[in-house]
Amino acid sequence: MAVYTEVGDEALAGFLKGYDLGAPLSLKGIAEGVENSNYLLHAERGEFLLTLYEKRVDEADLPFFLGLMEHLAKRGVNCPQPVRGRGGAAIGRLAGRAAAIVTFLEGLSVRRPTVAHCGEVGEALARMHEAGADFQLKRRNALSIQGWPALFEAARGRANEVALGLASETERHLRELQAIWPENLPAGVIHADLFPDNVFFLGDKLSGLIDFYFACNDFLAYDLAICLNSWAFDEAAEFDLAKGRAMIDGYQSVRPLTAAEVKALPILARGAALRFMLTRLVDWLNVPAGALVKPKDPREYLEKLHFHAKVETARDYGWRA
Amino acid sequence: MAVYTEVGDEALAGFLKGYDLGAPLSLKGIAEGVENSNYLLHAERGEFLLTLYEKRVDEADLPFFLGLMEHLAKRGVNCPQPVRGRGGAAIGRLAGRAAAIVTFLEGLSVRRPTVAHCGEVGEALARMHEAGADFQLKRRNALSIQGWPALFEAARGRANEVALGLASETERHLRELQAIWPENLPAGVIHADLFPDNVFFLGDKLSGLIDFYFACNDFLAYDLAICLNSWAFDEAAEFDLAKGRAMIDGYQSVRPLTAAEVKALPILARGAALRFMLTRLVDWLNVPAGALVKPKDPREYLEKLHFHAKVETARDYGWRA
Repeated sequence: MAVYTEVGDEALAGFLKGYDLGAPLSLKGIAEGVENSNYLLHAERGEFLLTLYEKRVDEADLPFFLGLMEHLAKRGVNCPQPVRGRGGAAIGRLAGRAAAIVTFLEGLSVRRPTVAHCGEVGEALARMHEAGADFQLKRRNALSIQGWPALFEAARGRANEVALGLASETERHLRELQAIWPENLPAGVIHADLFPDNVFFLGDKLSGLIDFYFACNDFLAYDLAICLNSWAFDEAAEFDLAKGRAMIDGYQSVRPLTAAEVKALPILARGAALRFMLTRLVDWLNVPAGALVKPKDPREYLEKLHFHAKVETARDYGWRA
Repeated sequence: MAVYTEVGDEALAGFLKGYDLGAPLSLKGIAEGVENSNYLLHAERGEFLLTLYEKRVDEADLPFFLGLMEHLAKRGVNCPQPVRGRGGAAIGRLAGRAAAIVTFLEGLSVRRPTVAHCGEVGEALARMHEAGADFQLKRRNALSIQGWPALFEAARGRANEVALGLASETERHLRELQAIWPENLPAGVIHADLFPDNVFFLGDKLSGLIDFYFACNDFLAYDLAICLNSWAFDEAAEFDLAKGRAMIDGYQSVRPLTAAEVKALPILARGAALRFMLTRLVDWLNVPAGALVKPKDPREYLEKLHFHAKVETARDYGWRA
């Protein structure tokens, strides 16, 4: 949950003068997103989401994020669409922060994804990859394999407080993955954080994708590997083959995986588990006093990492020729 | 800001089966109210506020609060209106909490009230008092003069950490007020917390009153005294006579004050300042580690208390015959 920066009525009215949305009717700070301050805004012209970007988001990345949402929305991906001000800009300033208004998406995130949900997500992910193919801006993935050693260094000294032998085990995974990480897989714009929180459904039908603030350029199949990690394990951290199969089938119904991608999938899935274990570990060890956000347990991803390390082929995730 | 209890998609869908609102379309935890968990709910039949009552609200009081909102709304007061379930109940259970759905009100609270806002609030307060006259349920004001000694005892030992000599000064105000507190003034249902946060405007027009969770039976003029405290001082804690006059004129345009109320107003205003100073002081001295809510500074109300102690007649608040 997050409202870090408060927006007063006068500041809002001033900000909205730069848009063609009519007068403000209501503004509610909402508990969504851990990186930014988000408000649900009612204006005379409809309902919108107002985001103030806090310090964890680099303002230089905003044209990529907002440009991507606009690009995807134009190509039929149901995602928040930036609203441009009268001067044509999608990014303004409010209460001392960079700020943007995007369209409001209906839908609910699911707490316990079903096989059907997983199929929908796989299909939507592939459609997003296709729609992003001709997006011109680039953003390096700072949280891909090149970024993991720095994360590990930030956590190494206290990693064993979280799980016995975690420091040496992590170092081993990191070295092994560095040795076998694939090159030259099909690449493009990936969401990089398509967890259940970031996908909306109405009933069993997927209604939208949100939170593109980790989006970047990387291997497309790495995005699928992230989704397998975040959607296809059950609550006891056991992999659910039916969910994995539905997700991969859904993905391939739009964009068939290449032979190289199929071969690399276990490595990518293991890497994705390591990435989320590492970022959670760093957050876990660095909770500020009085934090608004309860950190997520890194051990969930450690268990997933153990699973992936034993996987031999993509068939173990439900892939079928 | 507050979302203490999370509501999953399945729990929500189950809960809504008891209402005639159609399927859920979206649910956003909102940062409003410090006592409860609040969600903005979109359902097929419209937009609503879903509240889960946390432990600071006594469930036995809910029929009073929700019954009052329904009673007032029927008599033309623009306030959230409880939505009854199929079985006729306004109170249900969700995620282990008592829960209620009320209608959503458009409007924005004002950060810097103007004279015009104060006039609107005075008038709306009097209309609320008139509309509440025939409400049958009763609720004692636990935070009126009988409740202040217990609050003071909870803070006395550490009061001087907040302001020099605060313990002895507070004791003196308390004794003096006990000696002169009025009896037999016109009484009825009061809001008891009609601060700027709890009043919505669209432009300069008042559009609604919210948060009736301190409402109770007490002197009507005490409610006006609370509003004079919370609306008619400027940011330097100086009383603004034009605001006070507009508020009292607005109130009297609907319900003229009796001679006894006019005479008692300085005492009631001083008591109201002491009440908010005391509750803020207790909260200030008891902030839990990792608190989501930053406590408000009790010294703001100490300064107001100093002002009221020097006031001689209601004319000092802007009252005119």
